[in-house]
Amino acid sequence: MRIRAALPRLAALLTAAAAAHAAPAVKPLTPGGILAQAPAADWQAIDPADLLVLDFAGGRRAVIQLAPAFAPVHVANIRALARARFYDGLVIERVQDDYVTQLGDPTGQKPLPKGVVAHPPAEFDRPAPGVRLDLLPYADTYAPEVGFSGGWPTAKGEGRAWLTHCYGMAGVGRDLNPDTGSGAELYAVIGHSPRALDRNIALIGRVLEGMDYLAALPRGPGEQGFYADARMRVPVLHARIAADLPEAQRPRFQLLKADSATYKAWARLKANRQDDFFLHGAGALDLCNALPPLRKSGR
Amino acid sequence: MRIRAALPRLAALLTAAAAAHAAPAVKPLTPGGILAQAPAADWQAIDPADLLVLDFAGGRRAVIQLAPAFAPVHVANIRALARARFYDGLVIERVQDDYVTQLGDPTGQKPLPKGVVAHPPAEFDRPAPGVRLDLLPYADTYAPEVGFSGGWPTAKGEGRAWLTHCYGMAGVGRDLNPDTGSGAELYAVIGHSPRALDRNIALIGRVLEGMDYLAALPRGPGEQGFYADARMRVPVLHARIAADLPEAQRPRFQLLKADSATYKAWARLKANRQDDFFLHGAGALDLCNALPPLRKSGR
Repeated sequence: MRIRAALPRLAALLTAAAAAHAAPAVKPLTPGGILAQAPAADWQAIDPADLLVLDFAGGRRAVIQLAPAFAPVHVANIRALARARFYDGLVIERVQDDYVTQLGDPTGQKPLPKGVVAHPPAEFDRPAPGVRLDLLPYADTYAPEVGFSGGWPTAKGEGRAWLTHCYGMAGVGRDLNPDTGSGAELYAVIGHSPRALDRNIALIGRVLEGMDYLAALPRGPGEQGFYADARMRVPVLHARIAADLPEAQRPRFQLLKADSATYKAWARLKANRQDDFFLHGAGALDLCNALPPLRKSGR
Repeated sequence: MRIRAALPRLAALLTAAAAAHAAPAVKPLTPGGILAQAPAADWQAIDPADLLVLDFAGGRRAVIQLAPAFAPVHVANIRALARARFYDGLVIERVQDDYVTQLGDPTGQKPLPKGVVAHPPAEFDRPAPGVRLDLLPYADTYAPEVGFSGGWPTAKGEGRAWLTHCYGMAGVGRDLNPDTGSGAELYAVIGHSPRALDRNIALIGRVLEGMDYLAALPRGPGEQGFYADARMRVPVLHARIAADLPEAQRPRFQLLKADSATYKAWARLKANRQDDFFLHGAGALDLCNALPPLRKSGR
């Protein structure tokens, strides 16, 4: 018993190794095991024009995959802002527990570069026809239909389709007026998915790298988590579109295709875990627990 | 425009003040505004026998409300472990992004004190009859019915009722065998709610204070977030049941009663925000976004 107790208890959850330790004869399939067997064709390389690379003081990095299909004007703005070096010198100014980490200009005085649309349209949702969904076959609290469109967590209803506020999704801060989110302020979701924000603010992408950093920053004091004390703020050293970096310096990611056999097997197993740890399969998987896995890739 | 841009953009979300700034004539009701008007009778003081107070190196504290109605043997164990000073000297040994922060004994060698049930029953769910739910009237992905039982996020189905893995809920780590979670290891959920764990592991409470600390700890390297480097581990200085502390030192909390008129108005407004920021009411609220608000209270 004391030897078993030396095992990290919750660790047993995810490791096929631990499962094998208990039942060496039969190795139950795990979600990770399914990914390891995925054929190369089930992975989709991400266009470097769609990757915003943010380097922070202290050698930390965040990489956001942009979603031009859902927020084309906002994404064009973000590319233009990065190319004009607008983000360089901006700071993480807000970390609110169970909600968002937010980047911006606390003074609000930095002028937008030429070519940036100061009042973009409200790209909070779009017409549903034409948006193909790989449906998740489970009920969603917030929308009649949910699934993945080009790998993006997407909901449909009332003739519209929209990206959803899952952990790790990134959006554009705005004022009260819907057209005030130029892209000058960006946020990432760091808590239980605040889906009530869906259709109220432009989501522009998903953080592929750096959530372990963005979500672990000290929470700002006060209700909304702003860093009133300027010493808490973390500067952006430079923000670049990966396509603008020399080839050798570009981060590279692959996303598991949500319409692939591998993804379907992975999601089915996530909904009905068979590892020895699990006594009771959930029989379901919610949208924000089903985001397509990703991996870094070589050149 | 540049003056408006000086406002923190996303900040507009939660402040009635900001809403009032844009529309001084009519002040839209906010969830916070509803709480401010709650009569005292709508708040429920939490029994100090149900509060586990964990003090960490660095002056940080976490307070967990225990759930004896759902996990009586586990909660009795935790009280006994605290009273035997078992947790003192244990460490936070694991922080996995979008998942859990976990406390335990990395060596697994610390003997359980007398009176602690080494192999507690699987208090992962309980018979549904007798569990009164204040139902949330929205679909849930994982269960036929969800709501709050004595303030606890609870799901029902298949004749059973169980606590759910929401952000901030706390559970007992275990090995592969279901009866190996003595209470010697505790975890808190720090990401999007991993509901697939429901009914597979004993939830024993909710973190009422200190999530801003537990969720902001550096993520451990590697797949499961364990701190292999002992220098990353954060010691528990002492863990006590609040009732065992001198009266003047007890932390005190009140939870908004989930069957109160105030809670119902608050949840209805969370599902249908009317602040100026919101263009589109969600029309729904999921269980883990609906946890009853709490407040610290005086003596």
